[in-house]
Order: sequence, then C-alpha cells, then structure tokens
Amino acid sequence: MAVGLEAPGRLSPVGGVRLASVAAGIRYPDRDDLVLIELASGSVASAVFTRNAFCAAPVMLARQHLSRGAPRYLLINSGNANAGNGETGMDDARASCAAVSGATGCEPERVLPFSTGVIGEPLPVERIAAALPRAVAGLDQDGWLDAARAIMTTDTLPKGGSRELELSGGSVRITGIAKGAGMIRPDMATMLAFVATDAVVEPALLDRTLRDAVERSFNAITVDGDTSTNDAMVLIASGASGVAIETPEDQQRFDTAIGEICEWLAQAIVRDAEGATKFVTIDVLGAETGSEARSVAYTVAHSPLVKTALFASDPNWGRILAAVGRAGVEGLDVSRVEIALGDVVIVRGGGRARDYTEAAGQRVMAQDEITLRIDLGRGHAEARVWTSDLSFDYVRINAEYRT
Amino acid sequence: MAVGLEAPGRLSPVGGVRLASVAAGIRYPDRDDLVLIELASGSVASAVFTRNAFCAAPVMLARQHLSRGAPRYLLINSGNANAGNGETGMDDARASCAAVSGATGCEPERVLPFSTGVIGEPLPVERIAAALPRAVAGLDQDGWLDAARAIMTTDTLPKGGSRELELSGGSVRITGIAKGAGMIRPDMATMLAFVATDAVVEPALLDRTLRDAVERSFNAITVDGDTSTNDAMVLIASGASGVAIETPEDQQRFDTAIGEICEWLAQAIVRDAEGATKFVTIDVLGAETGSEARSVAYTVAHSPLVKTALFASDPNWGRILAAVGRAGVEGLDVSRVEIALGDVVIVRGGGRARDYTEAAGQRVMAQDEITLRIDLGRGHAEARVWTSDLSFDYVRINAEYRT
Repeated sequence: MAVGLEAPGRLSPVGGVRLASVAAGIRYPDRDDLVLIELASGSVASAVFTRNAFCAAPVMLARQHLSRGAPRYLLINSGNANAGNGETGMDDARASCAAVSGATGCEPERVLPFSTGVIGEPLPVERIAAALPRAVAGLDQDGWLDAARAIMTTDTLPKGGSRELELSGGSVRITGIAKGAGMIRPDMATMLAFVATDAVVEPALLDRTLRDAVERSFNAITVDGDTSTNDAMVLIASGASGVAIETPEDQQRFDTAIGEICEWLAQAIVRDAEGATKFVTIDVLGAETGSEARSVAYTVAHSPLVKTALFASDPNWGRILAAVGRAGVEGLDVSRVEIALGDVVIVRGGGRARDYTEAAGQRVMAQDEITLRIDLGRGHAEARVWTSDLSFDYVRINAEYRT
Repeated sequence: MAVGLEAPGRLSPVGGVRLASVAAGIRYPDRDDLVLIELASGSVASAVFTRNAFCAAPVMLARQHLSRGAPRYLLINSGNANAGNGETGMDDARASCAAVSGATGCEPERVLPFSTGVIGEPLPVERIAAALPRAVAGLDQDGWLDAARAIMTTDTLPKGGSRELELSGGSVRITGIAKGAGMIRPDMATMLAFVATDAVVEPALLDRTLRDAVERSFNAITVDGDTSTNDAMVLIASGASGVAIETPEDQQRFDTAIGEICEWLAQAIVRDAEGATKFVTIDVLGAETGSEARSVAYTVAHSPLVKTALFASDPNWGRILAAVGRAGVEGLDVSRVEIALGDVVIVRGGGRARDYTEAAGQRVMAQDEITLRIDLGRGHAEARVWTSDLSFDYVRINAEYRT
C-alpha cells in the first residue's frame, strides 16, 4: 500500500556503530523483534522524545540515562510499547537495561531502552534477557537493514537511508532508520528513528542539528493526529571517521544532510501510513504567524472529510474550505484566501475560482502524490505538513490491531 | 445503522406555526427537498449560527434579516449548501427570499433562508421559486414530520420530538426537528435544528434559553470534528397558546423542557452519525477548568484510534490513555488519572487498574451505548461530550458522497 516508497536495497555501515537483530518472541512469532545497537566509546548522542503526558516507561528511563552521560548501547523492541504499565513498566525497563549490562559489561545507565507496539501489556523481560547473548554475538556494522525490519509494527516496508558527505577534513557517512505507520502526529518529538554518523561532532552542535532537523521533518507529519506514547528519535555521532566539523560550511553541509535524511524518513512514514493510498503535501502560506500556519495545515490534514475525499480522488474543495474556516484563525478574511490543488487554483475570492473546472481538479486528485496550497493572504508566515488519506484499510488495520 | 434511534411516529402541531414540504428537484429526484415554515404574526425567534469563517451565504443573510426584526417565514432546502459560492451565493440567497416574498406578500427581510447539502454548487433558485406556490398552498400545522424528512441529507432517519408543558397559566407545546449525520462538530453553534413553542416568551428570555440549551446539547456533540459551514439552530415562540412565562418556576420548567428537547435532538444526530455503530458518552471530571475538561473530552472523541477501537468493540484503553496524554493538559499528573469504561475502572495510578480484567472491559465494549469516564484528579470542573465510532461505512459514505 505504501505510496511511492520501496524497501531500501542496502544501508551503508557507519564506523563505530554495530547492530544486531534477533527474534525474542515478544509478540510476533518467527520474526526479529529485538535490536541491539552498540556505539563505540567516545560516541555522542542527542535525542528528542514524545511530549505525551502518558509517556512510556522506556521513554522516561532513556531520558534519565541520557542526562547522565553518553550511551554505549541502544536496546529496541517491537511488539510491546511498555506504556501504561505504571511502576511495573519502569521496573521492566530497568531490568532490560540491567540485562544488557549483564551481557556486555557496560553500566546499566549507559543503555537507552526503546519500545514500540501494544500499550498496556507487561514487557516479557525474561525473553529479552534470554535473547541478548545471541544479539551481542551477532553485532555487525552491516546490521542496519535487518534492524530497520525488526523495529516494524504495522509498517509494510522497512525505512532507511544513507548519505555520504564531503567535509573539509574528509568524507563522513550518515545512515538512518525509522518505523511508524499509525498513531502518528509527533508533537515536538518524533516516531522511533535512529540516525548515526561517523563524523566527529560536539554534543551541543549535535543537539542543535537534531532539533532543527526534527522540526522540519518528523514534527511536520501526521497520519491520524494521535501522538504516540513512545515517540523517540536519536542522533548518534560515533566520531569513528576522525573527520570533524571544522568550518561553518562543514556545519551547514552536515545540517543539510541530517535534515534531508530526517525529511526522507519522516516522509517514508507517511508514505507507508496505515491504509495510505495518497501522499499529500499541505503548504500554508500568507499566515500572520507560523503557529497560525501550522494550525491551518493540521486542521486540514486531520479532517476526516478531507481525508476521505482524498481517498476517493474527489476534488471536494468544499471540505478543504470548511476545514480552513474552522481552524480558529481570528478575523480571517475569506475573500483573500486562495486554495490550489497542484497547479490548479480552486478557491479565490471566497468561492470557486472562475476558471476552475471539475476536470482540472479531477486530474490532480487522480495522482498518488498531491500538493495542496492554501494562501491565507494576511501575512508572510508559512508551514508545510505531510499527511495521508483515510481509507477502508485504515479502519480495518485499526479495528484489527491492538496498538 | 442508527444506534438506539427510531423515526418519530408523530410530532405535535404547535399553534401559530404551519409547515409545507415539497419536491423542488434541487438535487435528489423524487423526494421533498424544500421546506417552508410560516410563523404567525407576533411570533418571536432566536437563532445561533456556525462560527466557521467560511459560513454559507444563507447563514450570513439569515443573521442580517434576524437582526432587522421577527421573521414570518423560514425557507430551508436540502441537497445544496449554497456555501463557498462567493457573491453569487449571496445573490441567490437574496433571490430565494424575494421568491418567498413574491409568493406570500411578506417583506423579503422577514424571510430566513437555510441550506444544507453539497458545498460549492450554484443554488438552483428558479426551481425553488417554481416550487414555492405549491409550498404556500400546502402549509399545515401537521407538517412537522414531513419537514423533518425533507431536510435530511446523509441522515438515515428523520429526527424530531414533542413535549407538552404545564405552566402556571395553562399548557404549552414544544416541537423540534433537526438534521445532520456528518461534518458534525458544532462550535458555539449547531446543526440545522428548528424548535417551536406556542408559549408567549419575551425575546431576551428566548435568547437566553436558546443559548443555555445549545451549550449543553448541540455544542456537546461531535461526529468527525468537522464544523459545518451551514450550522444553524432556531428557537421560535409563536405565543399562539396565549400562555405566558409568568413565574420563575415557569421559566425553569420552560428552560428544562427546551434543554431536554435540544439534548434529545443533538443525541439523535450522533445516534444517526455517518456509519455509527456505537453511541458514546464521554464524561471528563476532576479538571481544573471547564475548557480543560472539554479539551480532553474532544481529544478522545476525535481520536481515529479510539474511534476504530470502539467500532471493533475492543477495550483498547491504551489508545484512550494516549489521547488523554496528548490533550495538552499542562502538568498532568498521570498517577492521579482514573479511566473507566461503564462501571469498569481500567486505568488507575498511571497504568492498568489491578482488578481490571479484559473480560470485564470486553463486556462493556460489546454494548451499543458506552460511557467513558475520565477523572483527571486535579480539580472540580467537568464536561460531557457525545460521539460515535469510526467504521467502514463512515469511509464509504464520505468517499461516495460529496458534501
């Protein structure tokens, strides 16, 4: 079902980072569901997490551990979110880190735990502990693609990408993976995503790069408006290449490359959204403030009526207009609003554009990838959001699958 | 598909109010789609309208006309919303009022126009004008049930109710009708609803009664979060009974009766929501403010994941918890939150309640009518919202029907 997305053929290894994926039997039979990522000594990491008040135990623990120093291991399981489990959830997350400590000799605080899957089921820690020795034995720089597969839940395809980047001191590599297809509306945070580079990067700069990239990628997508309890994104710099960011140009190239890979991964999540048949870019222009622009973009992106019209390939601009009208823009002058589907202007001067034809709208809506441009005509702020449509399969998947 | 709702057998006539429904061929073949309501001289009316910035031409014109004096006629068409039509829409709404004026002799400003149906199609004024003489000839005090049918769009059943009320000076009658099944999230306004009484009521009191009733009825329902461009509710007091509201007890009885009929009509809209298989009451308690309580209630009510779990009769409390957690409640202490499905407590102390069993949750979820109680444990404010589930039929109806 994924729109314009294929599984990556190969993901480049990143010096200083080894991965292993094993089947621990957490929920799914006969598939890998546990990933261990080892970071070489001297690696630095930066992360952002969900702001859902009911954030999962592993999110709380990963945040704590990260504040105490650079991590050496990341432990990720799919099939169980370890969210909504109260104190037991915290105990289980701590026990998982202790199990990694036992199998590797590193301190438990140097392990960051991540979970994704069903909310409210106890985490089977003993199965995770039992599988860890196999994981440690299998650690491999070429483990990225297997890891991208092992962290999937309702995803239909693994998501990952690699870049090679020339800095003034030499070349560095960046590889990233992500998962997510439903319960997607990262809010100042992200879905599960892991991006690593072998560049040498100062922690403070890594932090800034991450936050900028997330803002324009994972924080600009929505599938169903439901912010997950487990969202997390981690950016790792192992320094293994020995190539550092030395000049402002290096920094800019690095930021751009990280931004591009984050945008690509975020878009991949929307392309593989539950039941998606369309990939939709919503551009809001001419707003008074950025938050006003985002509010209009998200109101349109979350409208079930707009989403079902997209599914039906119906250029039902009345629903778009109604969504813009209810987005809470104070004193909106509807006569200045312009709405275009692709290159076809459909609304101008408070109503249907004079030269609009149903055939022209239909031609754009029939495409798999659609850009919707909404100009509010009252300022210079903008926002861009990517989203998917609402199909029978979205309902089927979520009526059958327990998040 | 309607949940716990049947078509009314009969609606009581209200003195001073006559109705006629005719087939004008606006959009649907072979069914009534135009309603004319005549109010006796001396009637007073109060109304609330949608706050969607893209409000429809008839909404703007009805608001203008109402501000100039008491109306004598209400003209309602289904099949065409006359929204998003710019200046042409205003011209067409004015022409419709002029046609009523021509057929009845009343001034055009004494006519309130209402439209519901597809957005962005020109209103066929000439067909409306051609059908009006038949409507005028057919005006009848017993026309309520036919009118409830004629204003339907994706509704599967007509919605209406009657009350008889004893006041100190004698008995009065109240009858109301409403339509709506999708694009339902009235915001400080309502769907199309018309309620009339033959009591004698002062305009200012009628206004207050209407606003109170709407707040706790039409403004407490949501189907899909999409506020319509055409919402309107009108409360009419013809005074034909000669019985006035004289005592504080009369006022209280009248307010209660109007409140009850509005709540019944609002619930009827949710029971007949597009594709609905469940009727869900969401009670939020223990909030710091009413707006905080409403925000949590609406976040849960709009969550596609909660709505698909309801459709699947799956007691997937993790999705409810995730929705509460993302509702933007500043400083929410999740350990104080309690969530119950019917009489079964599922979440307590930040996780699954100790005594909760899947079988107990399943028993509640299997019912057609479900109450979800969310206690935030931080204050004394409350909110109640009614909503429906998200089913295959919701997608089918909205992928096929052009709003």
